[in-house]
Amino acid sequence: MSEPTSIYADNNATTAVAPEVAAAMQPFLGPEFYNPSSMYEPAQGVAEAVGRARQTVADFLGGVTPREVVFTSCATESNNMAIFGVAAAVPARKHIVTSAVEHPAVLEVCKEMQRRGYEVTYLGVDRHGRLSTADYVRALRPDTLLVSLMHANNETGVVWPVGDWARIAKETDPGIVFHTDATQSAGKLSLDLTGELKHVDLLSFSGHKMHAPKGVGALFMRRGTPLRPYMLGGHQEESRRGGTENVPYIAALARACELAREHEADMPRIAKLRDWLQEELSRRITHLEVNGLGVERTPNTLHVSCHFIEGEAMLYDLNRYGIYASTGSACSSGSLEPSHVLQALGVPFTALHGSIRFSFSAYTTEAEVRRIAEVFPEVVANLRKMSPYWDQKNNLPRETGPA
Amino acid sequence: MSEPTSIYADNNATTAVAPEVAAAMQPFLGPEFYNPSSMYEPAQGVAEAVGRARQTVADFLGGVTPREVVFTSCATESNNMAIFGVAAAVPARKHIVTSAVEHPAVLEVCKEMQRRGYEVTYLGVDRHGRLSTADYVRALRPDTLLVSLMHANNETGVVWPVGDWARIAKETDPGIVFHTDATQSAGKLSLDLTGELKHVDLLSFSGHKMHAPKGVGALFMRRGTPLRPYMLGGHQEESRRGGTENVPYIAALARACELAREHEADMPRIAKLRDWLQEELSRRITHLEVNGLGVERTPNTLHVSCHFIEGEAMLYDLNRYGIYASTGSACSSGSLEPSHVLQALGVPFTALHGSIRFSFSAYTTEAEVRRIAEVFPEVVANLRKMSPYWDQKNNLPRETGPA
Repeated sequence: MSEPTSIYADNNATTAVAPEVAAAMQPFLGPEFYNPSSMYEPAQGVAEAVGRARQTVADFLGGVTPREVVFTSCATESNNMAIFGVAAAVPARKHIVTSAVEHPAVLEVCKEMQRRGYEVTYLGVDRHGRLSTADYVRALRPDTLLVSLMHANNETGVVWPVGDWARIAKETDPGIVFHTDATQSAGKLSLDLTGELKHVDLLSFSGHKMHAPKGVGALFMRRGTPLRPYMLGGHQEESRRGGTENVPYIAALARACELAREHEADMPRIAKLRDWLQEELSRRITHLEVNGLGVERTPNTLHVSCHFIEGEAMLYDLNRYGIYASTGSACSSGSLEPSHVLQALGVPFTALHGSIRFSFSAYTTEAEVRRIAEVFPEVVANLRKMSPYWDQKNNLPRETGPA
Repeated sequence: MSEPTSIYADNNATTAVAPEVAAAMQPFLGPEFYNPSSMYEPAQGVAEAVGRARQTVADFLGGVTPREVVFTSCATESNNMAIFGVAAAVPARKHIVTSAVEHPAVLEVCKEMQRRGYEVTYLGVDRHGRLSTADYVRALRPDTLLVSLMHANNETGVVWPVGDWARIAKETDPGIVFHTDATQSAGKLSLDLTGELKHVDLLSFSGHKMHAPKGVGALFMRRGTPLRPYMLGGHQEESRRGGTENVPYIAALARACELAREHEADMPRIAKLRDWLQEELSRRITHLEVNGLGVERTPNTLHVSCHFIEGEAMLYDLNRYGIYASTGSACSSGSLEPSHVLQALGVPFTALHGSIRFSFSAYTTEAEVRRIAEVFPEVVANLRKMSPYWDQKNNLPRETGPA
């Protein structure tokens, strides 16, 4: 039954390490193992490699100053550092604006800030993941410390105009710090922090969503942004982040950033494959809802909800065909609760548990997507045959389709 | 002038990645790149690899329960997590006991705790880095939250009886949490958390001091220890540390722990080489003080202070011979201040700037140590010829030699 090769369609969970990226780190797992803080010549060579990597990442972010790039262990750390760090630097302001569909690495920090006496506004979204700019503007207050709104959603791929929102924040009150979690947009959309995103103060991203290994990320920190260090220790990263530099992965992240710029050329092809799959599935599967329909999304993401079946069962069956996808975020898997993102979208109850995300990469081929289009409708049909809800569907109110 | 091969004698700063360790991580940089939180079969295989690694690390720590091991990005993170995490969990207690010679990853966190209204007792040490148990006992108070005392010092290698001190803390007040930074002892001394260290609640260590790459560490968290998570996000590490698991480095850390147990057999040989070098240098260099003389030290560390010369100049000259050593901690290099450790030891002023640390590993050979014994006295003699202080030395009070 299973195909000879597997199809990886879960690139929003993590990506394969690109061979070029794996190669870039090897010298630092071998002869160039020195501590970049050491004084002797070969260690200085390692320090220079870290410097070159920082320049490459700065270029990737639209040509920012290398000093504005802080290497971290992951986007989760970058998000913790951004929120806790700004709060520590500006104790007078006690209000944070975020959204209900952020990643747990933002939401959990915001909940912690509430426990510490902060007020947090969690902005809601509409059925397709849009956040109203009017709601956003109304949420800004004289005591607003920080806005943290993601660039693209990990589950639906919905992209938000964070460049505009950052400009609005600055026009409203230059004292508001604007942070965006760009973990899902890095490598898929351009991150131009000297252009479209020039009002963004802090931007988090992670290597492992763009073909670098798990365990490295960065925080862009615009010059002048008030932020107290989060991980305290040695003088590394200009005393903004303690801990000996993870040189192999820093080199890997830089190589992944170069590669991401090459992959930009693949994104229109990937978007076309995604759109084609969306049409095929919509045509071949009844009672299917596309989440984020008609809204700008990352080119690689298709998130659908199928009424009357279980996401886990779909995954299990797809796995038997060697097709690897996800119900939503890997970061909350293991939980039987429908994701907070789908709940915030108001996905109808009978479809909430039947959600699945296909997420592609620059390496995804047309043949792979065609195979998904062939297999997935079968999987759904078989599961519905067994579903106790399916027979009752005609008694249920017909769900409204996407607008 | 330079020798054909270089001699790396700075293993307390970082270590070469062992070939076995580099090999252990490769599958996870290749086909086994999946997110261990994902539901499909091959991702479950990755999750199992993380589980096996956790078991290996638990074995390395004296056969603790795997659940008691939390993977982090480095010992700095482990230290931040330990101190901030315990403070958040037990808000009623506001006193911390630590020492003046801890690593910055402990000291900077303690300073931050002071800014947050905590009282911190920084215990001093004697000329050879010993901390008095009587002083320690006197420092414990009814409101003591946490003791954080290192297992072995990074600069001098001096080992402290943290097992005893942990027992004393528990006998005094079971509510006191005992943390030790074992970054410099892991791989050199046995870490028996079910035996000698059975009263230690929290223990930090790092991969890159034991032939794993920079960017991975662990925190041992004894069951029942009150600790609120430090890095907030997804459910990883049983919701104790957010962020997608760094699978390649976790596999590397486990392999390094296995290797460290094999390397235990090398430690007596390394201690003998260190002791031999200490005698040779003491014999061949006048006005030389061994820091930590007569005190239990990690077997690989020799730290000496040479009167009337500059450590940086020694390093520079040794570098020309291909010998790589350090004045002290790489984490504070770049600063011209003498290290806080040497200041706490009360190294005499004329020797404070002339300190150098040689730190070996299981891979260090006798030939390498002989070469250091040959070259280093020459380096010192040449520098002293140029030193403006050298000629005046007879006018200075003669420093007392080591006891």
